[in-house]
Amino acid sequence: MTASFLPPKRILMGPGPSDVPQRVLDAMARPTIGHLDPAFVDLMEQIKAMLRMAFRTENALTFPVSAPGSAGMEMCFVNLVEPGDKVIVCRNGVFGGRMLENVKRTGGVPVVVDDAWGAAVDPQKVRDAFKSNPDAKVLAFVHAETSTGAQSDAAALAKIAQEAGALTILDCVTSLGGTPVLLDQWRIDAAYSGSQKCLSCTPGLSPVSFSERAIEKIKARKTPVQSWFLDLNLVLGYWQSAGKRTYHHTAPINPMYGLHESLVMLEEEGLENSWARHRAMHEKLKAGLEGLGLRYVVEESARLPQLNSIYVPEGVDEAAIRSRLLSEFNLEIGAGLGDMAGKIWRIGLMGYSAKQANIDLCLQALSACLEKSAAGA
Amino acid sequence: MTASFLPPKRILMGPGPSDVPQRVLDAMARPTIGHLDPAFVDLMEQIKAMLRMAFRTENALTFPVSAPGSAGMEMCFVNLVEPGDKVIVCRNGVFGGRMLENVKRTGGVPVVVDDAWGAAVDPQKVRDAFKSNPDAKVLAFVHAETSTGAQSDAAALAKIAQEAGALTILDCVTSLGGTPVLLDQWRIDAAYSGSQKCLSCTPGLSPVSFSERAIEKIKARKTPVQSWFLDLNLVLGYWQSAGKRTYHHTAPINPMYGLHESLVMLEEEGLENSWARHRAMHEKLKAGLEGLGLRYVVEESARLPQLNSIYVPEGVDEAAIRSRLLSEFNLEIGAGLGDMAGKIWRIGLMGYSAKQANIDLCLQALSACLEKSAAGA
Repeated sequence: MTASFLPPKRILMGPGPSDVPQRVLDAMARPTIGHLDPAFVDLMEQIKAMLRMAFRTENALTFPVSAPGSAGMEMCFVNLVEPGDKVIVCRNGVFGGRMLENVKRTGGVPVVVDDAWGAAVDPQKVRDAFKSNPDAKVLAFVHAETSTGAQSDAAALAKIAQEAGALTILDCVTSLGGTPVLLDQWRIDAAYSGSQKCLSCTPGLSPVSFSERAIEKIKARKTPVQSWFLDLNLVLGYWQSAGKRTYHHTAPINPMYGLHESLVMLEEEGLENSWARHRAMHEKLKAGLEGLGLRYVVEESARLPQLNSIYVPEGVDEAAIRSRLLSEFNLEIGAGLGDMAGKIWRIGLMGYSAKQANIDLCLQALSACLEKSAAGA
Repeated sequence: MTASFLPPKRILMGPGPSDVPQRVLDAMARPTIGHLDPAFVDLMEQIKAMLRMAFRTENALTFPVSAPGSAGMEMCFVNLVEPGDKVIVCRNGVFGGRMLENVKRTGGVPVVVDDAWGAAVDPQKVRDAFKSNPDAKVLAFVHAETSTGAQSDAAALAKIAQEAGALTILDCVTSLGGTPVLLDQWRIDAAYSGSQKCLSCTPGLSPVSFSERAIEKIKARKTPVQSWFLDLNLVLGYWQSAGKRTYHHTAPINPMYGLHESLVMLEEEGLENSWARHRAMHEKLKAGLEGLGLRYVVEESARLPQLNSIYVPEGVDEAAIRSRLLSEFNLEIGAGLGDMAGKIWRIGLMGYSAKQANIDLCLQALSACLEKSAAGA
């Protein structure tokens, strides 16, 4: 017989999921109701309204996809890219690379703008790409690269796309709630995020938002959307006003309770206060990490407060340290991905994890493990 | 300011979600851990083992998709169907129709076998379809049509496909855990289900299972899978043995706790005992419904115990009755879909909802509302 699963109590300072507050956990344990229940319809309307607050948008089509951020990403591409459409994709980390995969699989024609991992996307390169490809229909980039901790200038990049008459797809998985994401001010056409980063909900939901221009493009498609599950033409009916609601799929009820509560908490704190808290906690962590002699991967101007990538000191077995942090301190931090595997650590300060107690624990634990490592070497 | 969401306490006797037991709700409120945490890897292995028990299979590739059943359906089609592949699709309700949509969107060539809504799929028609289409590569059908309550003979249908050398895709969303689903005995190649029916977990996860033959077909594909999120070539790496685990997407941690607990409960009860309970509760509900003069939509031989479709008596405003059941008794039952909208009710006896107390409430409440309706008419 299998026993019930009792997870260890961890402190989550990796690249996500972040710590989930008890209020959000409690919300997820409330009684399940049907997805067509009038009470659930109310819940959906409230979630949509609060997501608009978080995204700083008036977009009517703003809702959580019933699947993780990678499905939110795919929803943007399969709906906005038709076979043959040229798409400029900026790649400065893992998630730009995943965007490129999505363009290929929708039959789009990708034009790749590469920047070094750890650097921001270079607006001049994007300008040049549009100059060489005036027929490009979409620009896609990652606002906050979770694989490196670099933040790109979304306002500047979106402006280049607008001047070229192209739509913009924005990955704001790691930025939403932690640093300014201003969809309407930047005139973003499609954005996707995740529930498990600066919103501090359980993973598995992907908030998305689409502009009127994006909806026009979707309605004017000449080819059907290749995915049934992610076809916005169908989802539109499901998420539109309560009176006309039709059945599309069965929404994940209890995770939606959790997302609702995490957005209520964001509303209570205030979005700008949340940004300020992430910034302030980052400054404290940074001072401590530098005090331990650790160096940042990303240069200061492009550094994300909520994701601190630092180089592993030479001669240190990074996996052994992470393993010790987990087993001795119940502390999770992230490893490097791709080319950065083995070379960096990624320390998250996202949502509920962005607090003094976590910083204290992290610095103390890292210090202890690095000392031991040095003593053992 | 938005207030925390406090859902009403409902009794869920619709077509799903079903009542979620307190143990499963409590499990979902346990502390979130990372998706790469060794403890989460253990959880995943246990879920996979228990799903094999529920599916009656030894298939190594058995796991929950991080999204609802319609994404599980799409995973089966986008991986097993290549552009140009002929697929025989049986359509005797809404979900057969959705399968057809999936075939079209993957570029497959559908051959539709139609049966009346409320009837089982006719094996002779499938035999004839293979005779006219000996080059058909896949047979797809719904085991338990959630839109009508009809069960088809999966063993007989799968056998026809095997004799024709075709693969079989099985929708067992509503049957898994409630009536026998015997993947290995029937030699099914791909099956998908949902967490929110007879497993009584929250909606949002889709257990799937793939045979070795299916995996061979996927590995031998000439074209890439059109979906990144659902590409089994990538997911294989994520769900394979713990030692080699790679990052694909962030799994929905807390819903996985819930699914684990619901499978532990199924293991404790015993799969065959669960089937027997669904059958016994169905007999009781049936006696009561017939006592109220209500008639079943599906003929007895094809009737699903866990989904009881009955005709709305003539002259009765069915929506008004459902609304009264919900507001006065906190009882949810389902309406008809498609052509059956307004004509039938669907009363679920799935998982934790399949119990005497629910039957008593349902019969009492229905009786009261129908009497009032007659008095008012």
